[in-house]
Amino acid sequence: MQMVATPRHTRASVRLLDLADPLAPMRNQFFLPRGVIYLDGNSLGALPKATRGRLDEVIQQEWGDGLIRSWNESGWIEAPQRVGDKIARLIGARPGEVIVADSTSVNLFKTLSAALALRPDRRVILSTPDNFPTDLYMAQGLIRQLGVGHELRLVASDELAESLTDEVAALMVTHVNYQSGLILDMPGLTRKAHEQGALALWDLAHSAGALPVDLDAADVDLAVGCGYKYLNGGPGAPAFLYVARRHQASFSQPLSGWMGHAQPFAFVPDYAPAEGIARYLCGTPAMLSLAALECGVDLLLEADMARIREKSLALTELFIELVESRLRRFGLELVTPRDTTMRGSQVSFRHPEGYAIMQALIHDGVIGDFRAPDTMRFGFTPLYLRYVDVWDAVTRLRRILVEKTWDQPAFKRRQKVT
Amino acid sequence: MQMVATPRHTRASVRLLDLADPLAPMRNQFFLPRGVIYLDGNSLGALPKATRGRLDEVIQQEWGDGLIRSWNESGWIEAPQRVGDKIARLIGARPGEVIVADSTSVNLFKTLSAALALRPDRRVILSTPDNFPTDLYMAQGLIRQLGVGHELRLVASDELAESLTDEVAALMVTHVNYQSGLILDMPGLTRKAHEQGALALWDLAHSAGALPVDLDAADVDLAVGCGYKYLNGGPGAPAFLYVARRHQASFSQPLSGWMGHAQPFAFVPDYAPAEGIARYLCGTPAMLSLAALECGVDLLLEADMARIREKSLALTELFIELVESRLRRFGLELVTPRDTTMRGSQVSFRHPEGYAIMQALIHDGVIGDFRAPDTMRFGFTPLYLRYVDVWDAVTRLRRILVEKTWDQPAFKRRQKVT
Repeated sequence: MQMVATPRHTRASVRLLDLADPLAPMRNQFFLPRGVIYLDGNSLGALPKATRGRLDEVIQQEWGDGLIRSWNESGWIEAPQRVGDKIARLIGARPGEVIVADSTSVNLFKTLSAALALRPDRRVILSTPDNFPTDLYMAQGLIRQLGVGHELRLVASDELAESLTDEVAALMVTHVNYQSGLILDMPGLTRKAHEQGALALWDLAHSAGALPVDLDAADVDLAVGCGYKYLNGGPGAPAFLYVARRHQASFSQPLSGWMGHAQPFAFVPDYAPAEGIARYLCGTPAMLSLAALECGVDLLLEADMARIREKSLALTELFIELVESRLRRFGLELVTPRDTTMRGSQVSFRHPEGYAIMQALIHDGVIGDFRAPDTMRFGFTPLYLRYVDVWDAVTRLRRILVEKTWDQPAFKRRQKVT
Repeated sequence: MQMVATPRHTRASVRLLDLADPLAPMRNQFFLPRGVIYLDGNSLGALPKATRGRLDEVIQQEWGDGLIRSWNESGWIEAPQRVGDKIARLIGARPGEVIVADSTSVNLFKTLSAALALRPDRRVILSTPDNFPTDLYMAQGLIRQLGVGHELRLVASDELAESLTDEVAALMVTHVNYQSGLILDMPGLTRKAHEQGALALWDLAHSAGALPVDLDAADVDLAVGCGYKYLNGGPGAPAFLYVARRHQASFSQPLSGWMGHAQPFAFVPDYAPAEGIARYLCGTPAMLSLAALECGVDLLLEADMARIREKSLALTELFIELVESRLRRFGLELVTPRDTTMRGSQVSFRHPEGYAIMQALIHDGVIGDFRAPDTMRFGFTPLYLRYVDVWDAVTRLRRILVEKTWDQPAFKRRQKVT
């Protein structure tokens, strides 16, 4: 079904929205390449200007001059907790409930291990087939390794609630779907999970820094999230994880490396987990990447999450409206929910030639991405995106579709990452 | 037993060694703070000068300008394999047998999982109580999670050979001991393990980049190693792992994240491991930290490992000789083997007041470190250390011991990391 919107905008009217935007000054805190409209901050966030100088300081002063002393003197050793506590403020967690460590995948392994250990008499992990694949892959790896017959049960998003039975050990879902941008009902599904005696493990990869999240209010048990998307932490930035305080002492996670030990520098041969969230650390943190993440998080803390959400919805709403009014005849099928309460900070359209169209668009300086088999994905990051960028992106997309410039071999040849 | 060496050196004679040192020019490739003698490159390697510029390029051009496109266009996606293949040249592995990923601890979990899976009818992991603790902790975590009664059996280094029985699934040991610097016999123990049907998993944390290692010649099955010590990859640099080609197809490791999938960007819900070493990847690599590691590895590839070993032994030999001749009466007890064939690139001395003495020494600009309960550890990195630094370090240590400057509260108060 295609809604036909009245074309009530012009480029000039859109520019007025930027003039009234309270977040507009934040854009100046980012480095953005000239001529590019970046609609892929949901895949890799843009570079905060502060990061470059901070990394130079970490490299030259802290590593170069301070050398090993910087673990104490520059606060490296506390960085996973310090940055975790900052992220906690973005996702409605309390101090001591979030820590930065490893990758999202590795953190999923830790937290899912916790969930299964806390429900030893249950065997079902409930998720959706369109969950981000690495979450499913990690669950499959864990199930294989545990070897006691756990089942990864996949049901459509709208069947999750009814599928939460007393067989389920853990609900393991992503808050905002990476393909469609659909938001799952965190408070409702968590409540339903708890009613059935299951734990709720949420992946915040497309939520943290993109929209308000309140883990505490929703009574969430466990969560993981990504540092390199809306937190603008840089390519492959360390990830984070959340364990509600009530569960922290109940389980010692299997990736029990020295950084999660009660006394890492006592060098005793037996593992004893640290108190609190620190037991979810494993090896030595990648400090350069972690320092970059902290810059991104600091910037986000300067803005108000309610304002970010407001602008995010205005941007996605504008994009949908402009595509549907200005590109009506090109067969783009909206994948993202029209209901704004169910929409993350991205808009996806399906098209049989989506891959080639996206390559042509990237070639033209509008960077979105493509998710197999046919989804063109556009991320809208309120901190550095203008309303006029949305207008201009649609204009460039229109030209590509009108002139069919996407229809050439160079744009159809698949690359490893898009 | 304390050997009393004839004091045949003077500062002037030691300076002649530097003049004749073929590796001397390498020092200029590193940034070293003025006034500091750095004897802790075994804990955190010094900053290569090239790293600063390279990271600025990664941050500004590749992340800032290239944004998401850099995964393809700047070779980020291939970096784990590319840098792995470079490290392979330092440790006697073949292309496609080494990959950079995660931390040493996480990589130990993966490779030990492989070893146990390949010997499903055996239950013993053989190691030493003085192995680096995180290796023991990870084994304990894995054993708990597998839950089928594996045993971590710890025996003294000199009892390893006789303890390799047909109960043993995996020999899991560190090539160069982090406290004493003792080298274990890699070819001999690996052969013995194989005779008993066990696999050999070696931790190269204090070997890679420090001395010649030939995994292929020793027929080693699995190995892990650290990026931030002798590889000079920066604080918390990503680690590496090695899986002999003959074992790669036999097992799919449990941390089965999307980067180790056969088709990471097909976004299918079922895990299928990539061919070859890539299946040991898990999440998205921390690119800033990985780029810094590559700089460190590149520098090491410029030098010849035989020359590095030759100078390393000359430095440690000189240090032992000078301590034992110039500091004879201060009760420092050598922990490191006198036999150079059994000594890594470090020298450790035990002293009841070792902690305070090391703090006083660090305060005086000679940076070594301390390992509980009483070991002062001095690392000797041939790429950026001069013979005269060894002389001067002993001179400063002598003053501290003669004047007892270590005997004050400030030096006795324990810090988190030393």
